[in-house]
Amino acid sequence: MPRYRLILEYDGGPFVGWQRQDNGPSVQAAVERAILALTGAASEAVGAGRTDAGVHARGQVAHLDLDQEWRLERLRDALNHHLRPDRVAVLEVHQVADRFHARFDARARHYSYLILNRAAPATIDAGRVWLVRTPLDAELMHEAGSRLVGRHDFTSFRSSLCQARSPEKTLDRLAVQRCGERITIRVSARSFLHHQVRNMVGTLKLVGAGRWPVERIEAALEARDRAAAGPTAPACGLYLDRVDY
Amino acid sequence: MPRYRLILEYDGGPFVGWQRQDNGPSVQAAVERAILALTGAASEAVGAGRTDAGVHARGQVAHLDLDQEWRLERLRDALNHHLRPDRVAVLEVHQVADRFHARFDARARHYSYLILNRAAPATIDAGRVWLVRTPLDAELMHEAGSRLVGRHDFTSFRSSLCQARSPEKTLDRLAVQRCGERITIRVSARSFLHHQVRNMVGTLKLVGAGRWPVERIEAALEARDRAAAGPTAPACGLYLDRVDY
Repeated sequence: MPRYRLILEYDGGPFVGWQRQDNGPSVQAAVERAILALTGAASEAVGAGRTDAGVHARGQVAHLDLDQEWRLERLRDALNHHLRPDRVAVLEVHQVADRFHARFDARARHYSYLILNRAAPATIDAGRVWLVRTPLDAELMHEAGSRLVGRHDFTSFRSSLCQARSPEKTLDRLAVQRCGERITIRVSARSFLHHQVRNMVGTLKLVGAGRWPVERIEAALEARDRAAAGPTAPACGLYLDRVDY
Repeated sequence: MPRYRLILEYDGGPFVGWQRQDNGPSVQAAVERAILALTGAASEAVGAGRTDAGVHARGQVAHLDLDQEWRLERLRDALNHHLRPDRVAVLEVHQVADRFHARFDARARHYSYLILNRAAPATIDAGRVWLVRTPLDAELMHEAGSRLVGRHDFTSFRSSLCQARSPEKTLDRLAVQRCGERITIRVSARSFLHHQVRNMVGTLKLVGAGRWPVERIEAALEARDRAAAGPTAPACGLYLDRVDY
């Protein structure tokens, strides 16, 4: 059975997240429904990252096995046809080795988080950014964020629901950049704890707003206590941009 | 009566356009409803450009007269409060001279048009771009577009419904730029004919797709005949970015 790697884009707004759940529509179920409609056979789509409810993706990766070989562009277009009207699109299809695993083989995951920093509400970008009305100092946020880079115990930035065995992770990159009224936070790591990105962003926002001095982010990290860090930033500003193998 | 200039952003999707009409919700009516709710008195909002149904704005300008003076930030926030849940936002408010006119005093209007050029459907950007599946050569589009810059009779790019007295306009800028799978077309002029931008974009797409040689755009212009140019690009890719005074 040939194995395929899909690169997926989706608007996370209407979904309970990547993973199949009983409480609403998931991206995984949408993809699997399209496969079933196309091939007549069920196949599991295994994703690189289990994006949460409302989190978007510009480059989620999933693998799946099919009964027969497909021309890659034909498979992409046919799946996109069956995915309609869900806001999920197959950007690319590649055939991969039988042992390829979208989740376990990932070497790096790249997320970005988008803040719209202005007084007026979002219109064109509603549901795709976190609107923060307090003026934020992006340079201070960058300075604070750079102190999280490296190998650390990220317990303070980990959801109580996180199932990872260890709270130790290596954050390879955290960069904050302002462009007009938009602030983008880019992060890269081999893997993240549950809510880690949104908890880091929610904490950096306190620094940007002047409510926390930069140094306090190190104290929060060292506390190894979720209560020592800031609140969780909303899902709608988060994008899974790319997964490297 | 003090006169105010508003800078407005909106998602054009749900609207029949800027202008008040009998056949559906308009941006103008939404703004005027917010003014009435806030002040208790009706006031007309005069827009710089009558954007069509589905066209977005990141910097539409409107003027209006109010019975009393307002603190500018207070007026902005109060109007935004009353505009909810419509996807229209007041970005800025300025007090202006009594003789200021948003439409007649405009010296330059800047639009951009966004094409998503890829095989897969739009998800996150659905309703905010024109999805073109044929690969487009943006450099050829830029080359063809530059031949439209200057003072010309734009009859070939003018809607049959256009009410402008003269088809002669001066196009100050037309630039086409690709960034990954996105192509942005930026245009500037003192004013445009009805559907002029969308008709130019629909024609440039034929050049980009290789169906028209670059030179044919000059022949289309010289024909002074709407049938000589390409089709009208869809409204959802068009943004009124800025108006200069």
